[in-house]
Amino acid sequence: MVRVGILGGTGYTGLELLRILASHPEVEISWVHSERFSGASLEEYCPAWRKRVTLVISGREVFDRAREVDVVFTALPHGVAMEYIPKLLEATRVVDLSADFRFRCKETYEQWYGIPHKAPYLLGEAVYGLPEVYRERIRTARLVANPGCYPTSVIIPLFPLLREGLIVPPIVVDSKSGVSGAGKKASEDLHFCEVDENLRAYNIGTHRHGPEIAEQLSVLGGKESEVYFVPHLLPVKRGILSTMYITLAREVSEEDLLILWEQAFSKEPWVRVFPQGRFPELKWVVGSNFIDLGLRKVGARNVVIVSAIDNLTKGASGQAVQNLNVMFGIDERVGLPGGVLYP
Amino acid sequence: MVRVGILGGTGYTGLELLRILASHPEVEISWVHSERFSGASLEEYCPAWRKRVTLVISGREVFDRAREVDVVFTALPHGVAMEYIPKLLEATRVVDLSADFRFRCKETYEQWYGIPHKAPYLLGEAVYGLPEVYRERIRTARLVANPGCYPTSVIIPLFPLLREGLIVPPIVVDSKSGVSGAGKKASEDLHFCEVDENLRAYNIGTHRHGPEIAEQLSVLGGKESEVYFVPHLLPVKRGILSTMYITLAREVSEEDLLILWEQAFSKEPWVRVFPQGRFPELKWVVGSNFIDLGLRKVGARNVVIVSAIDNLTKGASGQAVQNLNVMFGIDERVGLPGGVLYP
Amino acid sequence: MVRVGILGGTGYTGLELLRILASHPEVEISWVHSERFSGASLEEYCPAWRKRVTLVISGREVFDRAREVDVVFTALPHGVAMEYIPKLLEATRVVDLSADFRFRCKETYEQWYGIPHKAPYLLGEAVYGLPEVYRERIRTARLVANPGCYPTSVIIPLFPLLREGLIVPPIVVDSKSGVSGAGKKASEDLHFCEVDENLRAYNIGTHRHGPEIAEQLSVLGGKESEVYFVPHLLPVKRGILSTMYITLAREVSEEDLLILWEQAFSKEPWVRVFPQGRFPELKWVVGSNFIDLGLRKVGARNVVIVSAIDNLTKGASGQAVQNLNVMFGIDERVGLPGGVLYP
Amino acid sequence: MVRVGILGGTGYTGLELLRILASHPEVEISWVHSERFSGASLEEYCPAWRKRVTLVISGREVFDRAREVDVVFTALPHGVAMEYIPKLLEATRVVDLSADFRFRCKETYEQWYGIPHKAPYLLGEAVYGLPEVYRERIRTARLVANPGCYPTSVIIPLFPLLREGLIVPPIVVDSKSGVSGAGKKASEDLHFCEVDENLRAYNIGTHRHGPEIAEQLSVLGGKESEVYFVPHLLPVKRGILSTMYITLAREVSEEDLLILWEQAFSKEPWVRVFPQGRFPELKWVVGSNFIDLGLRKVGARNVVIVSAIDNLTKGASGQAVQNLNVMFGIDERVGLPGGVLYP
Repeated sequence: MVRVGILGGTGYTGLELLRILASHPEVEISWVHSERFSGASLEEYCPAWRKRVTLVISGREVFDRAREVDVVFTALPHGVAMEYIPKLLEATRVVDLSADFRFRCKETYEQWYGIPHKAPYLLGEAVYGLPEVYRERIRTARLVANPGCYPTSVIIPLFPLLREGLIVPPIVVDSKSGVSGAGKKASEDLHFCEVDENLRAYNIGTHRHGPEIAEQLSVLGGKESEVYFVPHLLPVKRGILSTMYITLAREVSEEDLLILWEQAFSKEPWVRVFPQGRFPELKWVVGSNFIDLGLRKVGARNVVIVSAIDNLTKGASGQAVQNLNVMFGIDERVGLPGGVLYP
Repeated sequence: MVRVGILGGTGYTGLELLRILASHPEVEISWVHSERFSGASLEEYCPAWRKRVTLVISGREVFDRAREVDVVFTALPHGVAMEYIPKLLEATRVVDLSADFRFRCKETYEQWYGIPHKAPYLLGEAVYGLPEVYRERIRTARLVANPGCYPTSVIIPLFPLLREGLIVPPIVVDSKSGVSGAGKKASEDLHFCEVDENLRAYNIGTHRHGPEIAEQLSVLGGKESEVYFVPHLLPVKRGILSTMYITLAREVSEEDLLILWEQAFSKEPWVRVFPQGRFPELKWVVGSNFIDLGLRKVGARNVVIVSAIDNLTKGASGQAVQNLNVMFGIDERVGLPGGVLYP
Repeated sequence: MVRVGILGGTGYTGLELLRILASHPEVEISWVHSERFSGASLEEYCPAWRKRVTLVISGREVFDRAREVDVVFTALPHGVAMEYIPKLLEATRVVDLSADFRFRCKETYEQWYGIPHKAPYLLGEAVYGLPEVYRERIRTARLVANPGCYPTSVIIPLFPLLREGLIVPPIVVDSKSGVSGAGKKASEDLHFCEVDENLRAYNIGTHRHGPEIAEQLSVLGGKESEVYFVPHLLPVKRGILSTMYITLAREVSEEDLLILWEQAFSKEPWVRVFPQGRFPELKWVVGSNFIDLGLRKVGARNVVIVSAIDNLTKGASGQAVQNLNVMFGIDERVGLPGGVLYP
Repeated sequence: MVRVGILGGTGYTGLELLRILASHPEVEISWVHSERFSGASLEEYCPAWRKRVTLVISGREVFDRAREVDVVFTALPHGVAMEYIPKLLEATRVVDLSADFRFRCKETYEQWYGIPHKAPYLLGEAVYGLPEVYRERIRTARLVANPGCYPTSVIIPLFPLLREGLIVPPIVVDSKSGVSGAGKKASEDLHFCEVDENLRAYNIGTHRHGPEIAEQLSVLGGKESEVYFVPHLLPVKRGILSTMYITLAREVSEEDLLILWEQAFSKEPWVRVFPQGRFPELKWVVGSNFIDLGLRKVGARNVVIVSAIDNLTKGASGQAVQNLNVMFGIDERVGLPGGVLYP
């Protein structure tokens, strides 16, 4: 049994970690921390846990109990995670759900997050936690930087094409996300009446996931990438659908592009390539750890790619648990939700 | 032209007042006040007003400009309204959208709102602003206490039956409201992800609209009423549907009950009695000032009554403008929205 | 392993059966039938099953393969189920999700469903599949009539009070249901634009679940019950919240009522009694097989009871699998979803 | 007074025409036709009209009463409109809300709509009803082809830039639409449970509005355009948000692009250019006839453009009435809704 601790367990990603880990057969939750709800039982905080999990939420004392666990998930805010992680790493392994260790380059982080990095010497060691790309390095990593939700939905479909040199920049990424991606904290912008029946683009050209996507695509494509990324806020709770517009370096048929994907993903337990003419929808992935992929040629060298994930699962906590599985030699399918609540 | 001032113009009821008054042919908006957005133009605050109304939001200075207007709408929080209203009444007439002057009895107010009343001597003078019931007194009122949203949906269908002594207590009122009734302020409870796909009962037996309903029904029925009132929060922006369960004092047919309503309401411009077998739905009233009514006999002496209103229109700002029309001798239909946005 | 066949597997209750059974460790799905999609693979019909379950949907031929399975779930329309069930019972056991065998009294069925009953001789043998009430009889039943969704939400909270003679009629039941309760078939009434942002009461006093509730409450209370039942259609996919208004036969405190429930339900794996002052919400049950209960005294002898279920799980397919567990001596918790997708 | 007849008055665009025309001060509705609801009163068909408009829905007989009206709105299905329009034009003017006369080129129509054109000789005469572009020709037109909803949201923001030769192909258009765009007819795809909490791309590269956009952009830009258009179905009732990605032919600053728009649109009553850094959202336009525009530079020559309309108003019936105003010399602002229902 892998013993697990969770820091920041009462936000939406923390609760999603609990949802998944509570039924993971090879995991034991040692402690769950939350500054704000310390001392409360999980079921008081969230009645969905009544008659299911009996667990008291811990306070700061658990920072000294890292030695008791095999891995800590840090679901803390950006900037806060990096304060604790160096200390945690002395005692255990870490999967960090914040953005603090996702960039290779300190300057990019500091430019986009607007704060000095407190542990830049770890940026080289941290492994970007996308198992489909970095599986081998994740196995032995001490520190896994769990990817952002939008980047997950973009990098997975694109990297097999990039690797083959098939994409000519720029890449247009038009993403649409459910509201849970913005977290649980109250805000006038996330008031039901401001989101319901609405749609809006936000942070056009300035969203922090833009440079995260760009850095990864540059690394994987072997040259500077050029990405135009626009996120939109959907009136749904969960789910990201990304529509990508790419130009091919040479003519390739729709069939061959699908074969390329199939070769890359047929053994991947959590990537599903849709057959020609069918496309991903949020409802086929929400609640599961799957990323669904579809594509269509719309011009001789123009392709539209559609991907769908649950932003809290494959886009955050599910991927974190998939990383745990990789890190501890567990079959990657184990303990992760495959079913959706349909309808 | 009736000159109007609005105190507290940037909450949902304030904005609904603006929506209605901006196209009211006999009204001129002199000033709109908001502490928080003072100095901003209306279109900066809310882009829906671009190319429509040019108006700068005022600050506290307008409290001294009551003499310039014929009537002030106070869309201020409970407890705050009563601080300013005595002074305002020296200069103008007031339609108060808060609860501060809705009760005849100071003690009831203080018990339910938990604060001492600052102007109890006005409680006797204030007129409960339900035109269908108190039209004559509203005409000449200096201070109109605009009814609560839930009470509007309950008192209108019941008073014709109460007046005839047709109802044996208790009355069960099961109400369901859209989220805008809770106001615009950010709160974790009103976060999109907490409301969407959810339904919950709240303040069971303790909602402040319970005693408001009870006081009015007691007055109108001529004896102490007994009401069990349970509100629910719906995942919609606007609308209240109230389902009421009453016991008849004697056997009356469904047809005769409908005739009784028709007699009471055929000349009312904003009350619609549905024909036998058809029932109100939110979608037929949202955006309009109508209250729709329907009923069905379900036992020899048991009747189910359904009413529907838009909580921000007939349940708040629309009713306030209907009161303005009555107060200034304007046809009650003028300037009020009758159409809905369907679908 | 219990071998299972499903008739009518592509409606919402059929798909929910599949969702649950696919991860039930003691069940093996032998065949799934659907007239309309016969021959298609499950993943073609519903892409959520890709990389999860490989299964071809069967046609009418499986009616002759009842002998291969230990139990058949009939998720067929009312009126159709009773055509096949007598034959099926010659070969296997049946859990029927239609209404065809829910009534003890043939006349009540025929009056409310408007068709002659084709197998009235089975009405006496069929067991009403509410494990919390009829567990012992379900163990050995050949034919289990799985309860309606609304009745499940009403009978469970009320029967412990009825059994103690604590309730004086009438009982008011105001229920609100998500749209999946109406099935998957296209209809103008269920068009997104007709349901979204709307709420409506329907079949007031004439819904077929009214007599089902009344028959059960009469049996359990030992005397004719009097129930006023009004269902409402919510703009959500899943979930029923029922608000019940009852009069007590004698004064009992809120605490004692909660103790009564605790005594009845503390050992029930799928019933959760909420602590004083807290109440069920859809979001704490949707996706799970739980029924959550809460109550509040609102008068000396007046109580408001709130219950919440997922209409497709505890209200249909989850309960059907709970019945399977009882019928085959499996722990009732096994294979049933306890977690919800929150947010 | 302009006398108006409506053919196909009970679909969503027909009802939206009624919503607008009923309060248009210079219009008189002579008759409203609907095959299916002929003989019913408007309020029977749609209770939102009770106590507002008394009108009996007409049948086929009105096809012979075109001479009584000054203009007919044809809100008939594609393919059906062109059967009746030649005859109608002998007696009156026509604003056609179908796609039948939107293309200049018969072959394009036949290729994309899959049926032979029945009145190709009218294609040259028909004027594409976008007043911001074709106002002068609309004034005297006998037949106005009211634009598609998606094309309206795309052509208006792009044509001032195209006219200046500022755009290098290709143009990426990622559009998101509410469900009312698909019409009122029941369909499994539009069932509440299939749309709610979902998002899907559809008709990728094959939507019929693609060639409509391409033809107009080619005409306006003076050379063959290259457009990649992907529509998505949003879980909202009304509204289209289009996000467009363009490459500039030369470097132009964000400020200068906004000035270009201001020059094109400052006198347009229904086009609103948002100030730098602010972007359109559905909630600021739904229910109104406005199109809102915003843009941001994201690279030296890369621009993201966002537009928002109500698909039933500016995207269909509102634009049709704007065309009526142009055709009959009425101020374009008259009778059209500017206000939104916010929240």
